Amino acid sequence: MSDSQAAFTHPNIVDGWFYETCTFWPGQKMALQVDEILHVEKSKFQDVLVFKSTTYGNVLVLDGAIQCTERDEFSYQEMITHLPMMSHPNPKNVLVIGGGDGGVLREVIKHDSVQKVTLCDIDEAVIRVSKKYLPGMAAAFSHPKVTALVGDGFEFMKAHKNEFDVIITDSSDPVGPAESLFGVEYYKLLNDALNETGIACSQGECQWLHSDLISQVLAFSSEIFPVVKYAFTTIPTYPSGQIGFTLVSKNKETVFEKPLRSWSSETEAKLCRYYNSKVHESAFVLPTFTKLAIAKK
Amino acid sequence: MSDSQAAFTHPNIVDGWFYETCTFWPGQKMALQVDEILHVEKSKFQDVLVFKSTTYGNVLVLDGAIQCTERDEFSYQEMITHLPMMSHPNPKNVLVIGGGDGGVLREVIKHDSVQKVTLCDIDEAVIRVSKKYLPGMAAAFSHPKVTALVGDGFEFMKAHKNEFDVIITDSSDPVGPAESLFGVEYYKLLNDALNETGIACSQGECQWLHSDLISQVLAFSSEIFPVVKYAFTTIPTYPSGQIGFTLVSKNKETVFEKPLRSWSSETEAKLCRYYNSKVHESAFVLPTFTKLAIAKK
Repeated sequence: MSDSQAAFTHPNIVDGWFYETCTFWPGQKMALQVDEILHVEKSKFQDVLVFKSTTYGNVLVLDGAIQCTERDEFSYQEMITHLPMMSHPNPKNVLVIGGGDGGVLREVIKHDSVQKVTLCDIDEAVIRVSKKYLPGMAAAFSHPKVTALVGDGFEFMKAHKNEFDVIITDSSDPVGPAESLFGVEYYKLLNDALNETGIACSQGECQWLHSDLISQVLAFSSEIFPVVKYAFTTIPTYPSGQIGFTLVSKNKETVFEKPLRSWSSETEAKLCRYYNSKVHESAFVLPTFTKLAIAKK
Repeated sequence: MSDSQAAFTHPNIVDGWFYETCTFWPGQKMALQVDEILHVEKSKFQDVLVFKSTTYGNVLVLDGAIQCTERDEFSYQEMITHLPMMSHPNPKNVLVIGGGDGGVLREVIKHDSVQKVTLCDIDEAVIRVSKKYLPGMAAAFSHPKVTALVGDGFEFMKAHKNEFDVIITDSSDPVGPAESLFGVEYYKLLNDALNETGIACSQGECQWLHSDLISQVLAFSSEIFPVVKYAFTTIPTYPSGQIGFTLVSKNKETVFEKPLRSWSSETEAKLCRYYNSKVHESAFVLPTFTKLAIAKK
């Protein structure tokens, strides 16, 4: 046992296993085996835990919920980024709300069209520990096109109008500091902060767990934006093994289900491990129970 | 606490939670909250546990691994059945190996073309407890087109040649009684038992966990069958939230990725909660990391 391992304990880690806890998915929990606890902190906003797992690399946990693991994060980061970016003809100015681990930044700067990407995360602790323990994601913070700010995304958006081509909201679940990012007021601010043909993509929760919430978000978004779609990706360490995305566009010509742009197959395979043009299309194909749940509202 | 709850204990259930254990997915485990333990038994082949969960209905567990829950089983049963059935022009005679919970039978008899479906599961205990605790799946055992046998699927297949239109292998993981169902000898038997245009679909494990095994199965299958494909479905309570299928056809004209037949939209939505024609197609769209892993072999 190393000194650091001996120095840390965490209530979610018992007998060498981390057990996820969150009231947002009752009756189920994911467990990962712990090799070493790397960091424990109560930040100004949330409980922050980083541990080295035995089979998923380093893992970032906020308020008891897994945010990312080094083994499977690429699925989420690639999909939440390239679904909106590939649906926009020429994204130059991009905003990321949340995303303090840096993973979305890493994906955004893969697009040569991007001139500037601004990140605004409420919790400096997330950025700080990600730079130390998740370098594969956080390396993008040092890219010359990136500006990172610590602050409330909701407030940041109020001060920015008609400005961004793409806004990506990479938030945690709506039971802590991210709660406001799932409400109608936030989608009105998105509408204002996007320029006239702008596109936004937000973490949209899981169709197996939260179809009511998804339906609500899609319903009020449809009253603000002419184009609204739900897509999803598979990812083992998110609850029920998948996570969705809410995509909205101010441009009524946007067809999210078919990527407007694509890389060559060779470039695509070099740049991405999950995303490809066909996966983009299939991400919007929903099982019947979800189609019915969404149609009800 | 009821009498039956007081009567049963199980080593995987601690402090009101069931924790999955299997060496086949090291470093991770799923946990479900237990309302009541309904059945505990050491059958001739495996450890059998049935419990009522707080949020997933009744749950069948074999050798510590979740086999099905009432809440999400429809995804697996529909997809393992309708992917091959909808790829066949006129399936009349169907064989199910494993599948003792009856869920695949329930799906097979939704196809009017079917005249006879035979099920062969090695463990009578699975059929018996499913009839008692999973009636939504096991009801199909009483259908007049169904014949259920208790026996070794491997041996059953040796005795049947050139007979079936579709064979569905609904097995547990290859670490217990189902191990032989993932080997080349089994696929040779499948080839023999299918008639000359027959199609088979087998539980094919998870691309996030078992890409080596998947690649091996696809590789040796490709030496036996002219058409071989891998597809997957999402399902919260299987490891990493998804499960795959290995599809093989003796008919070189088979194109699994586009369903050859389909129900009307209305019938489809009445008969199925997960499967639809578009989901059929997208089930074959694989992320880049899987495409590369499969291509290596």
